[in-house]
Amino acid sequence: MVDCIIIGSGVAGISAALTLQANRKSFLIFGSASLSEKIEKAEKIHNYPGLSDISGKDFATALQTQLKTAEIEIKEEKVAGVYALKEGFALLTQGGEQYQSRTVILACGVESIKQIEGEERFVGRGVSYCATCDGFLYKGKTIAVVCTTKRLEHEIGYLADFAEKVYLIPMYKNVEIDRENVTIIRKMPTKIEGNTRVENLVFAAPPADNIPKDLPVNGVFMLRESVSPAVLVGGLETENGHVIVKRDMSTNLVGCYAAGDCTGRPYQYAKAVGEGNIAAHAVSEFLK
Amino acid sequence: MVDCIIIGSGVAGISAALTLQANRKSFLIFGSASLSEKIEKAEKIHNYPGLSDISGKDFATALQTQLKTAEIEIKEEKVAGVYALKEGFALLTQGGEQYQSRTVILACGVESIKQIEGEERFVGRGVSYCATCDGFLYKGKTIAVVCTTKRLEHEIGYLADFAEKVYLIPMYKNVEIDRENVTIIRKMPTKIEGNTRVENLVFAAPPADNIPKDLPVNGVFMLRESVSPAVLVGGLETENGHVIVKRDMSTNLVGCYAAGDCTGRPYQYAKAVGEGNIAAHAVSEFLK
Repeated sequence: MVDCIIIGSGVAGISAALTLQANRKSFLIFGSASLSEKIEKAEKIHNYPGLSDISGKDFATALQTQLKTAEIEIKEEKVAGVYALKEGFALLTQGGEQYQSRTVILACGVESIKQIEGEERFVGRGVSYCATCDGFLYKGKTIAVVCTTKRLEHEIGYLADFAEKVYLIPMYKNVEIDRENVTIIRKMPTKIEGNTRVENLVFAAPPADNIPKDLPVNGVFMLRESVSPAVLVGGLETENGHVIVKRDMSTNLVGCYAAGDCTGRPYQYAKAVGEGNIAAHAVSEFLK
Repeated sequence: MVDCIIIGSGVAGISAALTLQANRKSFLIFGSASLSEKIEKAEKIHNYPGLSDISGKDFATALQTQLKTAEIEIKEEKVAGVYALKEGFALLTQGGEQYQSRTVILACGVESIKQIEGEERFVGRGVSYCATCDGFLYKGKTIAVVCTTKRLEHEIGYLADFAEKVYLIPMYKNVEIDRENVTIIRKMPTKIEGNTRVENLVFAAPPADNIPKDLPVNGVFMLRESVSPAVLVGGLETENGHVIVKRDMSTNLVGCYAAGDCTGRPYQYAKAVGEGNIAAHAVSEFLK
């Protein structure tokens, strides 16, 4: 059991990791070794103290170098969920691995893409965030896949192996999926409908000539870079999609902290860095 | 009238300034052009994201370069006090200048030196933080001067011009004051005593052969790099010397925000940078 598990490798997660290391705490950090997509995409960062007008790419490189020097390795396994145990937490990966920790710091960022109406209602009843966890459930069935980033494109192929028919709604350019049973739709759905389970993916208007406005599907996969914190951690209190935190970054769950964009605006590097630092110090205090 | 006055040129103040500039707000920043003494003194900073194992000196240089590039100039006038007006705030400098602003961000840091017992009780009744403001009041009198930093040594000379007798308690090395009416004491006093005004500076034991344990003085000057926020801004709510802030860095005074060490632990660059950023965004929101 480690002292802390950090979920997210944006600047908030990295800030927390560096500070936990300085405080000699054991930890694991889950995320992408290429760090947050948001960092790389930033054109110029004007207001990060110490790095004058740095490009997002250079900032990402500086952070990667710093992690390498500090010998901090990012675990690239995707997190399926975090569960509070009698003491501490268990983290399950989408690959089925389990890790345990005394505390958790959520630094999972915020999706700029809004949830679709009905999405939360049908989680576990046709709505899934994890191809490798739930893909086999849809063998021979019809599914829709909303994919927000090219990075997750490989998961679509995985789903197409099981499902008979896949309607893909990609939110990125240069789609490279070429499978007979995959139909690409370039319109966003407005809601998910059904009685006890998902039955239809609904569009404002027919999204293509031979695709109806109410598209019958057995399941909807939402493939996003980050899962909403409330979905990730059961019982976590949120407001408008943001984790509710106190000044020390503690959440309503004892031992669970949050930092960075997932706690709300401003969505800024400096703010995320500060919150990661505070959360790591609060964890160190808590472990006493 | 400017949109905001920032008090303090440590990383919290600089972070706030860079973000206010990005948000196109007008502002003044008061502090030391050589920035915070604390930054320079840091041997190695291990946990500031983006700058791997940087020395305090190099960090200070990077910040100075960044301010220069951004054309942000630090006003070196010492702040005597901040007063809430019907709308906005007035700032008075120790030199008697007045500035007005719609909002204030306190980023004045925290003194590692504790207050002396009785200090707060006698503020304005024998205890002063400002040589140029109150020095003339002690013409021909006996005063004690507690000076925490070499940077303020010139103020001692100024006081020695007025007072008949100065007992200097320096908290730094290489004292270069050579005046007939100045006696150096190398012990810290334990308290300030008196009835309605300061009467004695009290030591645990006689601090020198011919200096009594209860030293009669008419006034005590506390020359510190930073003044306690509660002394600086009347009516500001503090707890254990720290400004009480909400998640958006707002204080109990409308339009007055605080960031960095003055809001409490952890005393860390990353935390200060984050809070400066949040405060600047809150100010921008407030000005709408």
